[in-house]
Amino acid sequence: MSPTSSADPDELLDDTAEQPAARGPRRRTVGEGPAAGHEVLNNPGSARISRVAGLSRRNARTKHRRFLVEGPQGVREAVRHVPDRVLDVYLTEAAVERHAEIWDEAVAAQLYVHITSEQVMDAMSPDAQGVLAVVATEEATGSEALAAALDGARLVAVLTQAQDPGNAGAIIRAADAAGADAVVLVRGSVDPTAPKVVRSTAGSLFHLPVVTGVALDDVVGALHEAGLTVLAADGRGDFDLFEAESLLEAPSAWLLGNEARGLPAEALSRADAVVSIPVYGKAESLNVAAAAAVCLYASARAQA
Amino acid sequence: MSPTSSADPDELLDDTAEQPAARGPRRRTVGEGPAAGHEVLNNPGSARISRVAGLSRRNARTKHRRFLVEGPQGVREAVRHVPDRVLDVYLTEAAVERHAEIWDEAVAAQLYVHITSEQVMDAMSPDAQGVLAVVATEEATGSEALAAALDGARLVAVLTQAQDPGNAGAIIRAADAAGADAVVLVRGSVDPTAPKVVRSTAGSLFHLPVVTGVALDDVVGALHEAGLTVLAADGRGDFDLFEAESLLEAPSAWLLGNEARGLPAEALSRADAVVSIPVYGKAESLNVAAAAAVCLYASARAQA
Repeated sequence: MSPTSSADPDELLDDTAEQPAARGPRRRTVGEGPAAGHEVLNNPGSARISRVAGLSRRNARTKHRRFLVEGPQGVREAVRHVPDRVLDVYLTEAAVERHAEIWDEAVAAQLYVHITSEQVMDAMSPDAQGVLAVVATEEATGSEALAAALDGARLVAVLTQAQDPGNAGAIIRAADAAGADAVVLVRGSVDPTAPKVVRSTAGSLFHLPVVTGVALDDVVGALHEAGLTVLAADGRGDFDLFEAESLLEAPSAWLLGNEARGLPAEALSRADAVVSIPVYGKAESLNVAAAAAVCLYASARAQA
Repeated sequence: MSPTSSADPDELLDDTAEQPAARGPRRRTVGEGPAAGHEVLNNPGSARISRVAGLSRRNARTKHRRFLVEGPQGVREAVRHVPDRVLDVYLTEAAVERHAEIWDEAVAAQLYVHITSEQVMDAMSPDAQGVLAVVATEEATGSEALAAALDGARLVAVLTQAQDPGNAGAIIRAADAAGADAVVLVRGSVDPTAPKVVRSTAGSLFHLPVVTGVALDDVVGALHEAGLTVLAADGRGDFDLFEAESLLEAPSAWLLGNEARGLPAEALSRADAVVSIPVYGKAESLNVAAAAAVCLYASARAQA
């Protein structure tokens, strides 16, 4: 079997073997700067590049247990906080100039770093701004992972039915900023390794545990088990967020709803308290990511 | 000139004249329910339908001074709060059943209401969930409109370089919820009548003045003229948001930055104070819409 007819491109260790020189673009190396001497990956049709691009699909991410991190901020945070999970870092020549610190940190961490042409970068991801990483998916799924993440936690965000990737990412980012100890995506929520979620977290995905794969009922059980007060954020609440100081001072977890449908009845009934953000104008409610930020910061402020 | 060769479809008052019966789909009327007897618009190729669909483009919105409101929540708020600006309301037969209150309120307000086939609705907008309105653009642009909106205001949100439509809409919605008196989109920001902005405001676009078309320098001048303290929301602030109670109690305006680049130097230098949301975790910052909600609610709470 010739290398180019390999059935599973993942078996290929690099893209030099698969492309007879006569067919691929001419080899080229970086002339100067921190990456001088490095070969430039410049064949957008190579199996390596297709394989990376394929990680935008959920089934490829699940099968290969790895995902894409696009853009300088996310890649920098991955290199800094989870270097042992970073499988490959790709930068264009222009990006190495612009983000020399990412190149330097990745090299210092002895990661596999690669220089690509603009065309190859575009073929892997249209949203990478010249900087891309492939990161191994962490095993933070199921009841054991949840119990470990909740151990000693004082502030937790629970996305009960998150579907919008931008909102899910923004909530993970807000939870990180507010000092939360963990985020839980209840079973059936959006995949936290989907490209738009990862981008929206702006690196926060690598700052705190993000647990998936547990049903709502079991999540609430685990929260109680960990000694957390379970607060449901909902417009039909019995408590006003800004008059619930004593409630917020205790270690607690916020149950957050779906953008369109809010919280399921099951979440409202199992919560220890339903808390509302007061609305001073004519809006019915806030966007769920904005609401999450307001609630998490109210807790952080009360607990400070 | 035959009706079908009309150069400007806007000149056509309805879509019955332009389609010889032999060429268009068969006429049909609603059989039962609140809209019984109404004709069903069922020709996705008619000039009226193309004209409505065309409002997804900025130049068509500017030329015709009207924009699309997609989805039940936005349409309900438009019908309720700015009925004199609602030019047409479109619902599918299924949507009339589901949202009878929108139909009833629109009929009571003597608006032009139309029933459409699913196919016609899809041709006008893929994001309408069966309910669509065409609304006249309000003249809230320029210095005079700004001065009028700021008169007596106690809380204002200023988007200095908003480019992301989802964030801009979420901020308008958060400003509404927090009881802000106005939102200002500094010249060069995203068009607040762009479909995704309108959808993201969830109706708040019709609850408070949204002023456009004024340069940052003139906006800051007008804010000071109106007696407002100008606060810049930025991570490099001299004040901690949660320790700035006395600053927040005064009538004030929040300058909010662009997602990628933050606030321009000009905004930081012209503000009366630069205020930071404390970050308790490892995140560098919050998503701008989440940050806006936290800042605006901190003001609302201090002013309450």
